[in-house]
Amino acid sequence: MADKSFRRDMNYVPDRITKDARTPEHGPVDGELWPVEPGRYRLIAAPACPWANRSVIVRKLLGLEDVISLGQPGPTHDERSWTFDLDPGGRDPVLGIERLQEAYFRRFPDYRRGITVPAIVEVSSGKLVTNDFPWITHDFWHEWTDYIKPDAPDLWPAGLREEMDAVMERIFTEINNGVYRCGFAGSQEAYEEAYDRLWTSLDWLEERLAGRRYLMGDTITEADIRLFTTLVRFDAVYHGHFKCNRQKLSEMPVLWAYARDLYQTPGFGETIDFEQIKTHYYVVHTSINPTQIVPKGPDPDAWRTPHGRG
Amino acid sequence: MADKSFRRDMNYVPDRITKDARTPEHGPVDGELWPVEPGRYRLIAAPACPWANRSVIVRKLLGLEDVISLGQPGPTHDERSWTFDLDPGGRDPVLGIERLQEAYFRRFPDYRRGITVPAIVEVSSGKLVTNDFPWITHDFWHEWTDYIKPDAPDLWPAGLREEMDAVMERIFTEINNGVYRCGFAGSQEAYEEAYDRLWTSLDWLEERLAGRRYLMGDTITEADIRLFTTLVRFDAVYHGHFKCNRQKLSEMPVLWAYARDLYQTPGFGETIDFEQIKTHYYVVHTSINPTQIVPKGPDPDAWRTPHGRG
Repeated sequence: MADKSFRRDMNYVPDRITKDARTPEHGPVDGELWPVEPGRYRLIAAPACPWANRSVIVRKLLGLEDVISLGQPGPTHDERSWTFDLDPGGRDPVLGIERLQEAYFRRFPDYRRGITVPAIVEVSSGKLVTNDFPWITHDFWHEWTDYIKPDAPDLWPAGLREEMDAVMERIFTEINNGVYRCGFAGSQEAYEEAYDRLWTSLDWLEERLAGRRYLMGDTITEADIRLFTTLVRFDAVYHGHFKCNRQKLSEMPVLWAYARDLYQTPGFGETIDFEQIKTHYYVVHTSINPTQIVPKGPDPDAWRTPHGRG
Repeated sequence: MADKSFRRDMNYVPDRITKDARTPEHGPVDGELWPVEPGRYRLIAAPACPWANRSVIVRKLLGLEDVISLGQPGPTHDERSWTFDLDPGGRDPVLGIERLQEAYFRRFPDYRRGITVPAIVEVSSGKLVTNDFPWITHDFWHEWTDYIKPDAPDLWPAGLREEMDAVMERIFTEINNGVYRCGFAGSQEAYEEAYDRLWTSLDWLEERLAGRRYLMGDTITEADIRLFTTLVRFDAVYHGHFKCNRQKLSEMPVLWAYARDLYQTPGFGETIDFEQIKTHYYVVHTSINPTQIVPKGPDPDAWRTPHGRG
């Protein structure tokens, strides 16, 4: 019997940007190494996309806005590419391209995989450097140390790496990817299995966060950012569109307070555009929403209500 | 510009069943008149369908189970007809038919409109009598008086008819039909207009029911039954499937308590089968849910929690 479960293509361009192009301590070294250099790279990240959202938050928390510029594709895209349709003239003002695909093709003329965000592009050549999203944010913290603002949070506290990796792995497979597994299940059976997996882990988080303000303790880490980008989209999209509807996030008291706590922390909420988020999912996924009608609800003002944590 | 709003075909078979086949005081007299007679008629009502649900509740509240029998089609149907697929051998045990369409055709061999429930069928001939749903429940109360149990609620209190008609008209156009107008809107504009209309009236009800236990005062009337059948489906279906997602019903404190109060009243909750309801909408409406996957949530046990009214 064919397995009808959703599987994410995890083959990314594994290049890394490191201090002096050194070999990084963690992660893939299958690609090329590029040196950290202010102004050399542009981060392309659509506000709608949860995977891109991580990089935008980390860039802000670390104060890297002046050394890595940001280009933002609009919420919808066709089968070929994200586009810069919200920019003047429909072109990214720095790279001058209409479609992110162009940066991929300049690097690999016969690139056949998906055109994904986040992507880092070298400004001078217009070539894609990497789209390997977990390592993009990892390297922002570990490699751009000379440019990180002094009061930035310690996103990877010493001594917690092993536990963080385990927590983030579960968040990735069960939550970040878990909602997609529900939404794109190819059969009732695959959906129900995905739903149970998702809620098992949401219940685990509800319990874990009852005893601590953030996932790893008293301070915000990379793990919180990776969880936040899914939670903030939950009631607007995943609950209805992906059928993750045991409860709304707002019906999970601990997770809802935790998510609002982060949303109201500088660097988080201002990266969120609920209209773009809803438009992206409901318009692009015609296989599950053929009418492409975008729901009006729920009211995003709920995100600004007192969270009572801290 | 073509109007993309959803419009319900309101042309039903307008026959009436009245005491001694008398001319009824209210409603259509365009069709034939049939006499009230115990055992002569069978009510066909799929548990999934809100329009049919009304008639099942009224039949129970009035104690008419022994004089009007009940046939129940399964939750899904094809373009042609509701079917008796849950019955032994796939046939209604009294009428002996597989498809409700057969009863329509016995009456009108060239019947071309939708095969809808509720439908009343004459058992001996197997012919459709009427499918004119607002008048079916109206006549249960007004015409079957000789068979109504003594302690039945007064569903149409004297002196309230005019106000009740106005309340029920608004509930019909804005709520019962309002959720369909959201779900089957043919454009973003039509959807948004439908959404605003729906919530304007849900807010009106939230306010009206804050000051009284039931819609018309201290006792249950036909108006409550007509509202209940939509409310009870709201979180299970309309919120996600029809994009009525400003809030869940469970986030409207007054309406949620009111709906649970009714659900927990004998005659209401036992007519509700959430699995059949979800299966019906999510499987039949392939134009808005092409995967036909049925969501697992939300938890129906919430309907049994204390409502605090009364």
